[in-house]
Amino acid sequence: MTDEQRDHDPIADLIVTYNELNTSFIEELHEEPSALEFMRFVARNTPFVVRGGAANWKATQTWTAEFLSNFLGDEIVNVAVTPFGNADAPTIHPQTGSLVFAKPHEEDQPFSDFLTYVIHQEKTQGLRKSEVRYAQTQNDNLRQEYSSLYSAVPPTIPWARIALSDPHRLGPDEEAQPEAINLWIGNSLSTTALHKDNYENVYVQIRGRKHFVLLPPHCLPCVNERELKSGGYVRQQPVTTEGEGEGKDGEKEEWAWGGKGKLELVMEKEKDEETGEEKEVTVPFAIWDPDKPEENATKYSKLAEPMRVTLEEGDMLYLPAMWYHKVSQSCSQEGICVAVNYWYDMDFTGPLFPFTSFVRAVNQQQQREKKKKEES
Amino acid sequence: MTDEQRDHDPIADLIVTYNELNTSFIEELHEEPSALEFMRFVARNTPFVVRGGAANWKATQTWTAEFLSNFLGDEIVNVAVTPFGNADAPTIHPQTGSLVFAKPHEEDQPFSDFLTYVIHQEKTQGLRKSEVRYAQTQNDNLRQEYSSLYSAVPPTIPWARIALSDPHRLGPDEEAQPEAINLWIGNSLSTTALHKDNYENVYVQIRGRKHFVLLPPHCLPCVNERELKSGGYVRQQPVTTEGEGEGKDGEKEEWAWGGKGKLELVMEKEKDEETGEEKEVTVPFAIWDPDKPEENATKYSKLAEPMRVTLEEGDMLYLPAMWYHKVSQSCSQEGICVAVNYWYDMDFTGPLFPFTSFVRAVNQQQQREKKKKEES
Repeated sequence: MTDEQRDHDPIADLIVTYNELNTSFIEELHEEPSALEFMRFVARNTPFVVRGGAANWKATQTWTAEFLSNFLGDEIVNVAVTPFGNADAPTIHPQTGSLVFAKPHEEDQPFSDFLTYVIHQEKTQGLRKSEVRYAQTQNDNLRQEYSSLYSAVPPTIPWARIALSDPHRLGPDEEAQPEAINLWIGNSLSTTALHKDNYENVYVQIRGRKHFVLLPPHCLPCVNERELKSGGYVRQQPVTTEGEGEGKDGEKEEWAWGGKGKLELVMEKEKDEETGEEKEVTVPFAIWDPDKPEENATKYSKLAEPMRVTLEEGDMLYLPAMWYHKVSQSCSQEGICVAVNYWYDMDFTGPLFPFTSFVRAVNQQQQREKKKKEES
Repeated sequence: MTDEQRDHDPIADLIVTYNELNTSFIEELHEEPSALEFMRFVARNTPFVVRGGAANWKATQTWTAEFLSNFLGDEIVNVAVTPFGNADAPTIHPQTGSLVFAKPHEEDQPFSDFLTYVIHQEKTQGLRKSEVRYAQTQNDNLRQEYSSLYSAVPPTIPWARIALSDPHRLGPDEEAQPEAINLWIGNSLSTTALHKDNYENVYVQIRGRKHFVLLPPHCLPCVNERELKSGGYVRQQPVTTEGEGEGKDGEKEEWAWGGKGKLELVMEKEKDEETGEEKEVTVPFAIWDPDKPEENATKYSKLAEPMRVTLEEGDMLYLPAMWYHKVSQSCSQEGICVAVNYWYDMDFTGPLFPFTSFVRAVNQQQQREKKKKEES
């Protein structure tokens, strides 16, 4: 990119300037940071990984598939069910062919059945297609649904608690406590699509490996955020015969629904408050996938320099507030992926949040003007 | 400002969003912060004042006018000389009437003569106009020119040193040392025009009071930065008669040049590297003054909410990197203002620097497009 191009395209210049001043290789620590060391990363809104930072946690030491299955037994848990591991992800609608936002079907299941399914699917991948199940309720589930497991992890991350206990935001003697502690259990078929959260996030891998692709908040013009029509998978009435269609080898291509009904993507409707008419619900969502950089790209996508990191068992990741992240996973030998993450409130004071909104506003204005030119 | 106006003016929306999330009242501490507490302010790029933080410094305890005059005696010091206390300030050129950037005349003087002049002028203000003298070389002068005074202040600010000793930027065992420690001595006629520095700044008031008007970096579109032609004051040959012209009361309006020649503003020239011809030197500089908000305003100036703070003797101010600051002063009873400031390197990694450049680029692009429309 020439200086002149940068001069005439502030968004391109922003992305390139950031790239020139920052590395896309993640900083690796080999012990947990002090609160001050952590705060320096918060200050520059930059991720780091602590290799083996959680290696001695009771969870890391004891949470085998067998232990979890025995320990939780028939406890009923909430499971996100999708055909392709695409919970909360941009998805081609099978009937209309258009890109929509797909939310999972949520179902209560006995934990041991759920885990048996996850493992069996992981070990027989390729044999037949079957729905993907993922325990991923991001509603503080480790202190709620899975509270019997909670004592196997620390109630807070000390360096984050100390650093973020800011009397400017909290009361003078108040401590920053995690807003949510979430447990994630699934297999390698589940992927979390590129998105961002308004939280400071400490992510801890317990079993298997997690593969993160990360982009800083100012890369918003690269990720091609669109208003997608929103739908959710709904379980249909079960049919008696399993499988349908023919595989490429002439054999039956089997879709196993575990004796349950198929999943159908049903678009959401809501009442328009003004007209009273039914209308489609939309959500803004990134449709660019850094792993398929040519598809759904904007003119800025090629300037993005994604940061990539794989968490091994016992590793911790600091994922700063507002960073885009896409997360895929590989299983342990047992065939499961287990992770825990801690969400702390982010600081909305200071320049980061207004600056990020500014990038969005400039990008939208540019798109409006382009559209206006094309129409005239 | 309506939501629709904000939607269609990203810069206005940026300033208003920031104002909504942040206060324009400075945070007041009553003891020095820990390194972690300081780092939280660095992280949100927000000033604070420590009331009495330097009250026990030897400088605060011992630097009277008499002490300084006796201690430094005839030592030769560099003095910035201007007619109106306008060193490094936008100034109406007396001949052309246009706004230019005026640099001071620099002169070597015995310290005791300089201080006598400063005090005498302060105490006889209004009697007659005379040139303004300010010891304000911002070249680490407290460790150079004034090194004999240096032991009366700490060599570094411990909480800043610890917080900013970031192994990510420095070597693993390297400490953040002040890039410069500057001493400022003058009287109430000197004002430092609104500008910003790429340093983390700890400012300490020793004698008299300092009045700061502060604006965060994203207020760049409010401060009306222009390319000003640059000039410097030059001492002319002395004339034998002092004073000239008539005052409004018909009395002689006296301009005292202390037996020296008048100051004339001489514009700088440089050779154009391409054409070899002489051309005028320009510098980008803010021409909006938050204390005269109607003059030289941009359409965004009225959205700015300046933060104001007065430092009393022994107070410390954290002035974050890239914040605009205008500084005026009131003297101690002795008729002097004395301050010391510590500059630490700022962190150019992270989002602050690229985001600030982005605001400048968007603002410039908007101005270019406005100009194009006006021309067509």
